[in-house]
This record gives sequence, structure tokens and C-alpha cells, in this order.
Amino acid sequence: MVIIMNPEATAENIKAVISTIEDAGLEAKVMDGASQRIVGVIGDKRKLGDVTFEAMDGVEKTVAISKSYKLASREFHPRSSVVDVAGVKIGDGTPVVMSGPCAVESREQLFEAADIVKKAGAQFLRGGAYKPRTSPYSFQGLEEQGLKFLAEARERTGLKVVTEVTTVEAVDRVAAYADMLQIGARNMQNFGLLKAVGKAGKPVLLKRGLAATIDEWLNAAEYIMNEGNPDVVLCERGIRTYETYTRNTLDLSAVAAVKHLSHLPIIVDPSHGTGKWRMVQPMAYAAIAAGADGLMIEMHPNPAKALSDGPQSLTPEHFERVMNGVKKLAAFLREEQIAPMEL
Amino acid sequence: MVIIMNPEATAENIKAVISTIEDAGLEAKVMDGASQRIVGVIGDKRKLGDVTFEAMDGVEKTVAISKSYKLASREFHPRSSVVDVAGVKIGDGTPVVMSGPCAVESREQLFEAADIVKKAGAQFLRGGAYKPRTSPYSFQGLEEQGLKFLAEARERTGLKVVTEVTTVEAVDRVAAYADMLQIGARNMQNFGLLKAVGKAGKPVLLKRGLAATIDEWLNAAEYIMNEGNPDVVLCERGIRTYETYTRNTLDLSAVAAVKHLSHLPIIVDPSHGTGKWRMVQPMAYAAIAAGADGLMIEMHPNPAKALSDGPQSLTPEHFERVMNGVKKLAAFLREEQIAPMEL
Amino acid sequence: MVIIMNPEATAENIKAVISTIEDAGLEAKVMDGASQRIVGVIGDKRKLGDVTFEAMDGVEKTVAISKSYKLASREFHPRSSVVDVAGVKIGDGTPVVMSGPCAVESREQLFEAADIVKKAGAQFLRGGAYKPRTSPYSFQGLEEQGLKFLAEARERTGLKVVTEVTTVEAVDRVAAYADMLQIGARNMQNFGLLKAVGKAGKPVLLKRGLAATIDEWLNAAEYIMNEGNPDVVLCERGIRTYETYTRNTLDLSAVAAVKHLSHLPIIVDPSHGTGKWRMVQPMAYAAIAAGADGLMIEMHPNPAKALSDGPQSLTPEHFERVMNGVKKLAAFLREEQIAPMEL
Amino acid sequence: MVIIMNPEATAENIKAVISTIEDAGLEAKVMDGASQRIVGVIGDKRKLGDVTFEAMDGVEKTVAISKSYKLASREFHPRSSVVDVAGVKIGDGTPVVMSGPCAVESREQLFEAADIVKKAGAQFLRGGAYKPRTSPYSFQGLEEQGLKFLAEARERTGLKVVTEVTTVEAVDRVAAYADMLQIGARNMQNFGLLKAVGKAGKPVLLKRGLAATIDEWLNAAEYIMNEGNPDVVLCERGIRTYETYTRNTLDLSAVAAVKHLSHLPIIVDPSHGTGKWRMVQPMAYAAIAAGADGLMIEMHPNPAKALSDGPQSLTPEHFERVMNGVKKLAAFLREEQIAPMEL
Repeated sequence: MVIIMNPEATAENIKAVISTIEDAGLEAKVMDGASQRIVGVIGDKRKLGDVTFEAMDGVEKTVAISKSYKLASREFHPRSSVVDVAGVKIGDGTPVVMSGPCAVESREQLFEAADIVKKAGAQFLRGGAYKPRTSPYSFQGLEEQGLKFLAEARERTGLKVVTEVTTVEAVDRVAAYADMLQIGARNMQNFGLLKAVGKAGKPVLLKRGLAATIDEWLNAAEYIMNEGNPDVVLCERGIRTYETYTRNTLDLSAVAAVKHLSHLPIIVDPSHGTGKWRMVQPMAYAAIAAGADGLMIEMHPNPAKALSDGPQSLTPEHFERVMNGVKKLAAFLREEQIAPMEL
Repeated sequence: MVIIMNPEATAENIKAVISTIEDAGLEAKVMDGASQRIVGVIGDKRKLGDVTFEAMDGVEKTVAISKSYKLASREFHPRSSVVDVAGVKIGDGTPVVMSGPCAVESREQLFEAADIVKKAGAQFLRGGAYKPRTSPYSFQGLEEQGLKFLAEARERTGLKVVTEVTTVEAVDRVAAYADMLQIGARNMQNFGLLKAVGKAGKPVLLKRGLAATIDEWLNAAEYIMNEGNPDVVLCERGIRTYETYTRNTLDLSAVAAVKHLSHLPIIVDPSHGTGKWRMVQPMAYAAIAAGADGLMIEMHPNPAKALSDGPQSLTPEHFERVMNGVKKLAAFLREEQIAPMEL
Repeated sequence: MVIIMNPEATAENIKAVISTIEDAGLEAKVMDGASQRIVGVIGDKRKLGDVTFEAMDGVEKTVAISKSYKLASREFHPRSSVVDVAGVKIGDGTPVVMSGPCAVESREQLFEAADIVKKAGAQFLRGGAYKPRTSPYSFQGLEEQGLKFLAEARERTGLKVVTEVTTVEAVDRVAAYADMLQIGARNMQNFGLLKAVGKAGKPVLLKRGLAATIDEWLNAAEYIMNEGNPDVVLCERGIRTYETYTRNTLDLSAVAAVKHLSHLPIIVDPSHGTGKWRMVQPMAYAAIAAGADGLMIEMHPNPAKALSDGPQSLTPEHFERVMNGVKKLAAFLREEQIAPMEL
Repeated sequence: MVIIMNPEATAENIKAVISTIEDAGLEAKVMDGASQRIVGVIGDKRKLGDVTFEAMDGVEKTVAISKSYKLASREFHPRSSVVDVAGVKIGDGTPVVMSGPCAVESREQLFEAADIVKKAGAQFLRGGAYKPRTSPYSFQGLEEQGLKFLAEARERTGLKVVTEVTTVEAVDRVAAYADMLQIGARNMQNFGLLKAVGKAGKPVLLKRGLAATIDEWLNAAEYIMNEGNPDVVLCERGIRTYETYTRNTLDLSAVAAVKHLSHLPIIVDPSHGTGKWRMVQPMAYAAIAAGADGLMIEMHPNPAKALSDGPQSLTPEHFERVMNGVKKLAAFLREEQIAPMEL
């Protein structure tokens, strides 16, 4: 940490800062700048506890040097991780695709969707049994009945099941049916839930919060990993900005940022990221070209009748076209070895 | 609802939209615009379930006319509500002040803070026993021990206690000690938690989410009210924007917006809203002048030693100055009858 | 400036950074942190020219210590400035009010507005003769004819005239008629225009850009002041955020921030800041309570017929009520001496 | 346009709205909703002038149906446009690349850069002669001398020259040297400048504003086209959001949005869009995969010595790798015919 003093800071102010550092068993180094002094803290910052230098007289601001997450960082774990979900590997160079309807609505709807997803070559079936909805009057999901349909669809197709869990009390129930637990954007900083899925013994898909920084997102992953669960996959799903043409602004640069800062796999959800079915295909291609480890795509046998998020769901025909393009693009990138970035 | 068709929509497209409306037992009215057709839906929109017209061919977009929340709306309840918290009224024209440290750190710290808060004339003691923190390695609060200290401080001073609850399982425990349950910004859309506090039988302070729209915020209040709890007070605490000088951007226009759209009281937290103690006083005055029903202000006996959020905590001396100014300003506004707005 | 090296930076990397600093005639100081090295630059940073350390191997990031603006900073000029506009003082403790229609539409409309503005006790008449409009097909203003009407209205009422200038070529013409030149939000970083108004010999009202940081805004003021014009008044008019209920998000904390960082006066425009006439009164009160040096308020004799920005214009009756409240509030704050902040 | 009335609107309120519509020679249609009335306007909205219904009593809001730009819209011009810049076609299916240093610093630097750009297979040389800089004390460009160097570099390499113009008075001078005039992000709503380049007789590269919506951006293109210049190419360069890890948030969904709404070509600038050289390659690939018509990439012979924007400039070696990957990817997409989207 570096502490930047005000130009008007007195000698006493600086002495107080130095004492605080030294009292914690650390070393302080003072630099005299052109108009301001800077105090560097040498040693393990954790010894300082939560001392807040900004509240001391004469301190202008502090600048953090080291990151607050560790298990999720590439510095700590230089090789990219591969997460194994019931035999399907995420992060091994071949992108995975998770698809299905936004919400599980009925056995028939889900089976129809699952068959299409399977036939098109995706590896995961998605579908919400517990739906976090802005209004209490909107459809909230089939709950455990939905989980059962998902498990049946897995039997039928061999697809792995990923589904959202929204409360601590439902974690065990969802973990009993699903292969992978999804934490939705609204719960990215529901720390009790993060700890609970960290103990549930199943891989976790962690969506980025609506307005979460990459730093906060990796700290959320740290909460899960700190409970002993290393199997975290991140999912970029668009952030909230001033632009209203799209439902969110899909931040594909997050793929490159996460690859640099962390060893965890990252997939992209162009359906929520744009809110428009028409944009799913170009953004799916873009995500793969940027180096994403997979995609999550909403597909509904009949989008116009979807109980939630119809405008962003692909039809079966369109989904097949996207899958076809994605597979070809991924194969091309692998063969040509034009790796998207130096880490 | 109004459905706007594409300029290229065919007669079949329009017929399909009309059939969908009529099949739901509603009436459709078609308007021919200069270049586009518009279809209006007449009747109770809820009959449509979650039909998503945007996914139908030829539909450009839909425009919602009515609001999705009802119990929280001023249309439903034209008179401003007054929320009674163990005898202290919020929303009756005299602003309340909630103050204390960000986190409960020890009995001594809390008692010292409570005495100052009481002496300065505030009505509520705040202090976190369960702290949602970005990093799993930061201080997470004293938990139940912190609740006990809060209850002891209430005995000592007569102040009402407001404190945050972060998980469903802690709701009953927190409700046993506190007079008012706080839902923090990160949990504004933790719908399970909203339902749980809706059933807990205590008034709720609902902070605005980091990037929540006013519409989403009032829908979150609706979740609580829909469980039978009408005693919800909103708290504006700054939203996330591109500006980095302040920790958040305090949106004081939310006070006026909420007063127009809802009957619920609203208070303002200038400490989290700015992240700088220096800005607390001017923003506290501004909030009162805008018509806020109260303030939440962080104060710490020794901000430099605070275990969290020191930079935004006032010292006891500064807090007294703010309280003095706020009281005079509130008295002036009441006497002069220069009401801040027509509702 | 402080240069933070990567944990993996080599001794050569650090040597290269040090050489670059020393080659510029400055001194480098190296600190060894727990896991990373930090290099401090001692001396006048300008000697470094535009060397970009972030592009050197092993450099993680740099942190600026000193501000890039100087003439506009309070460090350089500790006493708050008072700007004299043709005899009316801005920043002397008594807030000024600038009011009138968004656009000058006709002599009649402007005279009617000017009489109301004068009668209510405001000091400035505003009204756009050159209107920057999103669409080329919207009303673009009466141009020089509008300036003449403004000058006539000044003769008639004694009000000072403030009006926007949008192009370098119009600066002299606008300066010939107006008492104060306004730079609109869209032109805050039109650097050629900033330089031109810096040479025009008239005080300047500099609106904050739609998504400008406070740092960029003060740098824009610096462009004007660097041409020899010290008479700059800032105007907060709302920033662009994700919230759509209001046209912009009025950032009243900018008043406190500017007062701390700069000696320049700052006024607030609640009309553009909210886009809703209903919110003008509470936000006007809030701005004054936060310590603003004045207000800019849109008022139109007949808002429903306004050629631009009708929804945010007050009626004459409402404007009088706002003026009445603002005057009382300002008098109260002056008399009570409850200064909004320590600088 | 559709006008939504308040639930409490009176019969007189509605009558007044209808009269206003009919007085303009248009037809009004009233729909009775469940709780609110809606008035539709039938006919050419322009007849209404700038009547602002929102300022009329009883009106809640209005909803625009038709777009405010026309020449730039795909509805008006269904086939995608190809812009010819001195013989190089933009938008014909083969992506173009514009590269070079952020600023022209010297003849040697520019020639060295131009040779690398040419050798790697790009078509355009970029380089700023007039630099818009946040601080007046930063390097502002070589101005006309820089333009001369650019023209010499064109002679030497055959590359086309694209360079920024920042003031109306410089338009003719820049147009005399350059093949394509660039409007920078800060000037996207400098309407005087837009009109001037609309008359300059050269193709224009229009960068998206820092916080511009897609609608505002296409309206800015409309200003240029409305002066008789159809040769506009758009350039996505990142928008301002709360995320600070990247300099801006590159909005690649804008590529798909623009392709749907407009017939104009669009290119992407991953250098400014991310601010980090490490992210240029993955974002360049992603842009091409999303369907962009080209790229603008900063490359500097020696990024560490760059007078501006070094951190985001590629080295020559890295640029060659990106060019190699981009060419292969573009060829693959063309051959496989996996078009990124249905328009």
C-alpha cells in the first residue's frame, strides 16, 4: 500500500501515519515528491487489519498495490484451470455450450428443448427452476418440480444440467439434482449463498453482477474457493450502462481481463448480454474469437410463448445455425493456432 | 401495453398479435401510423401471463403503460405513509437521524458511539453486526455478539436500533434484537431475503441497490409489502456511475422521484453515498432540503481506527455540527412552509 | 508519480524504469513491497514529457499523485473566487439565479419571460440563440436574431444575459451581445472553443459534460483560464447514468467536490439535471443547501408550446414559488451560519 | 407518437391533447386502457413542430415510434453501403485495417510506423496531427507539419491517410492532405464540425462519443449526410462505464446494432476501447467475428517512448501477429459463409 499525503500535511501528520504502520510491525518508507509526500508500507499488509489511513489528518488517499483475492488469481495459480463437470471439461480449449429455455415451464417444453440442444451438439442443458424476478407478480419458477424435470431430461439426453440456486436453504436440494450450480447476477454478492455453494460439492457457474467490477467478481469467486471448492467457472452476461438499445452491455473485454488476472475458465451469455435474439449469433462468434471457454444461450421451442425472456431466446432453427458456426469457428481457431492473447 | 410493429410487418404478423391478445380475453385496438402500425391492449394485462410479443414476427418493441408494483405506489395509496418504529415516526414531517459506526467492533466502541448519537439528538443507533464485505478476508462483523451489544446500547440510551440482516436464516435472530431490519444495497434483489423480512413483523429499511433503477427498488419494496408488511422505509445511498472521485454518486433526485411515485418514506445516507466524510454535511443538508424524511450518517468515536469505512465516518465533533445544522434547517423548512414539491 | 512493477518484473525491467527517470533529470526511489516493487519519481514530473511507463516491460500501472490542472485548483488559489459579471457577483455568498426559456423563440416570448424573471428577483436572463440539437431536423435556434432579442430584453429589464456559444466562429458575435458566454455540456471538451472563449474577454459559464469526470471538467476550466481568462463559473447539469426515470442524474455531490478541489464558483441546473419540472423545486433547494453559488432554471411563459425542452420548464407561477423558497432558504443559511462544509 | 395520460387525467386534459393534434392537421385516436388512456397520433409527426405534450396537464409521458434519423437508417436504404476511400472499399466484405501511432511525433517515427503498417498488410495509415487532450499542458500535436508528414508517408507507401480534425477552421486544411477525415469521440456532437465535414468532399470516420447512445451516434451521422456527404463510416471505440480495469468498455454489440439499424459500415478500435495493448488482439478477433468492416489499431515503433497513449499501442512484432490472425479469420469467415447475423 502507498499512502499519499496532502500537500499541506504537517510533520506530525506524517509521524502519526508512520507510527501506525510501525505499531503494526511493518516498515514505513517516506518519499518526498515535488509537492507531496508519499509513505510506502513494506511487509504483509494484513498485519494492519482494517486501519483506514484516509481518515487520518493529512492523508489524501491510499493506493492498493496487491489484489484482495488470492486463490482466484493467476499469480497464485499460473496455469489455466480446467473444471470438470460430471465428465465435461470447461477450459481445455474446446468451448462448451449450455442451452435451453430461460425457465422450465413444463416437462413437454423442457424435453423438446433438451432434444434440440442435444441434437445441435451442446453439452449442457440450462433452465431455471427458481427464477429471480423483478416483480413479485411474475412467474417465479416450478421450483423442485422443475429440478425433477431437469434430471429427467438429463436421463433422456445425457446432457449435463446447470441451474440457478437463489437461496441458501435450496442449495442442497438443487445440488441433489444438478451437475453445476449457477449463481445469478443479482446474487453475485449474496455472500451467504456464495459460502453455501462453496461447501456443496458441485462446480459453480458464477455470473457477473449487474454492475460488478472485475475485481468484485473475482472476490466473489474467492468466497466460493475459500470454502474449499476450486471448481468455479465465470460467466460474463452484460453490465448495466446508460445504453438502452440493448438490455445490458456485453463486456467481451472481460474475457481477456479475466484470462489475464485469473486462472478460472470464463464463458459468455450473449442472450442476457444483449436481450435481443438477433444479436446472439454475432456476439457468440465474438466471444469465441475473444477466447471464451464456452457460451450460455437461451433457446426456446416457441419463443413467443416463453414465460420469461422470450425476446432474447433463439428458435430451434436459429440455434442450430449458431451452433454450426460456433463449432466451425472454434475448430478453425484451434487448428490455426492464432491464440487470442498472451497472458 | 402498446405493441409497436415493424414498418415491414405483414398483415399476418398483425393478425397473429391480435389473436394472441384476443385469445387471452382482451381487446386489441389497431392504429395506423405514418409508417408503422401500433396495437393497443385493452383490459387487465395480467390475463396475458408472460406472453412476449417481442419474440413474435413483425414486432419491433412493446411499451409498458402501467407500473408493475402496486402496494408501493402512490396511485394505490395517495396519502404519504408514516412508519412507526417502536414509537419513533418516520415520514411525519420531522426528519429522523440514524447514526453510529459502520460496524459494531466492541461494547466500549458501541457504547461510546451510542452516547454521542443520543446526546446529539438522533433517534436511531445504527451499527453492523453482520457485514457484507467484498473480500472474504475482511472483517465480517461480530454477529450475534454484536446484536447483543446493540440491545444493551438501546437499554442504555433509549435509541432505537437498526441493523442489517444478510441471510434468511439470521432474520429471526436479528428481529429479536433490532427495532428495524436493514436490507443492504447488495441484497436489494435477494428476493428470498425480502420475503423473509416481509414476514418478520418488524419495520424494514430498504437500501437502494448499487445499480438499481427506481422502478426495481419499488418492486423490491413490493416483495416485502406483498408478504403483509406495510412498514417499509427506503434509503438512497448512492448509485454506481463512471465518476470515481466519490465512492458512489448520491442521487438526491431519487427523493423527489420516490415521493411522486410512492407513498413510502425515504431517507438518505450521505456517508455511503459519497464515501468522504467531508461531503457528509453538505449532502445531509441537501437531502433535508429536497424533502427527505431522515438521514443515516456514519459516525465513529475514532474514525482512523474504524474496522470498516473509516474514510466516510464523521468524528463526534463533526457529527454534532451536522446534527445542529440539520435540526435548524428542518425547523426552518417546517415553519416557512416552502414545501419542496407538489406530489 | 508512483510506478508499480509486476511481481514478475526482472532486475533489468526495474533498471530500465530507473534509467528513464534519471535520463529526464529526476530522481528515482525504489521501495520493496511484500511481493512487488514500487518506484517513486521525485521532482517536477513535467520533465518526463509524455513517457509512458505502462508500455515498458514489467510495469503494472502508474499512479498520478499531482493534479493535471493548476490555475483552477484550490491549492494554487486557496481563497474562493468571486466572478463579476457586468456588476453581478457570483460566489460572494448570495446565490444568483439565471432563468428564461430553453430557446429564444420570438421577441414576444422572450420579453414575456424576461419580465417574469425580473419580477421574481432573478439576476440573469438565459435563452438559447444557437441550440445544439441531437437531430439535424430539430429547431436549431434563431441565431443572431435571437442574440438581438436577448440584448433588447436586457435593455428592458436590466437583467444580465447568459447564452450558449457553440462554434469558434460565433464567439465574437455572441460576446458582442452577451454578458456571459455559456459552454454547453456537449462542448465541454471542444478544446478549440474553450481556447476561443478564453480569449473573448467575457466571463464563461462552463457546463459539465454529459459523462465528464470532475477532473476532466476542471481541466476544461484550465483550458479557458490558461488563455488568460480567470472568470470561469462551473455548472453541474446532471450526468449520464443507467437510470432512465430522470433525463440525467443530477450530481449534487459535485458541488462539494468542486468547492474542495477548486476556488471557482459553481451553480446547478436542476432543469436539465432532472428533465422534469416537478423535480426542479426540490433539487433547487437541495443545491442551495449543498452550498451552490446559484441556479440555472428553465422557465417558459407557456411550457406546452415550448420549441424545446418543454417537459422540464416551469410555468411562471411555479417559478415564482421556487424563487420565493430559494431566497428564504439562502437568507436562512447566511444568517444561521451553518456553513455546508469545511473546505 | 403515442401519448400516455395519467390515471387521473380529466376529460378536459384529454380534449386539450386531441385539439393540439388536430390543430396541426393530424388525426388523434384514443384508446381506453385498464386504468389509463392513450392517445395515438396518426400522420406525419413533423407537422407538430416541437409541441411538447409532456408539459400539458394530465400527460404522463410520450413514446416516440419513428426514428429521428432517416438518411442513415436501413429502412431508408436497405442495402449495406460500401464507402470508397481513394480506391479502398470499406464495407464490401473484406475488413480494412487502419494503423499507426496515436500522434504524429516526427517524420522518422511516422515513416518507420508507415513501413511496418504497409508491410503487415494494412490499408490505412492513422496518426494524429491535431490531438484533443484532457489537459492543456499535454502534447497537442504537430498540426500542419504533422499533416505534411502524413502526406509524405502516403507517397512512400501507398497507404491511405486518415487523421482527426478537431475544429471547423482546420477542416479544409486537413481535407487537403488526408483521404479520410476522422471525427473524434469528444466531437461527436460538435454539430458545427459535423456540418463542416459534411461539406468537405471527403469520406468521414465518425467515432462514437464517450457516452453516446447508438441513436445519438446515428443522428450525428445524419448531420454529416444531410450536408450531402453519404460517405460516413462509424467507429466503435468503447463507452464510459463504471468499470475501471479497462479505459473504456468496448461495446461490440454496437456492431450488430448498427448493422441492423443502419446501412453504414462500422469499424472497431480495440486500442482506445480497452486502453491495454494486451487486449487488442482478442478484441480485434472478436470485432471481426461480430461482423465489423474493419479495425483501427494503434501501433508505435517504440510504445514506451510514445508521446501519447503508449499503454495501448502494440509493438511492431505484436501488430504483425494481430494482422496475421485477422487476415486468416476474415478469410475463414468469408469462405465458410457463417454470416454473423440476419439483418
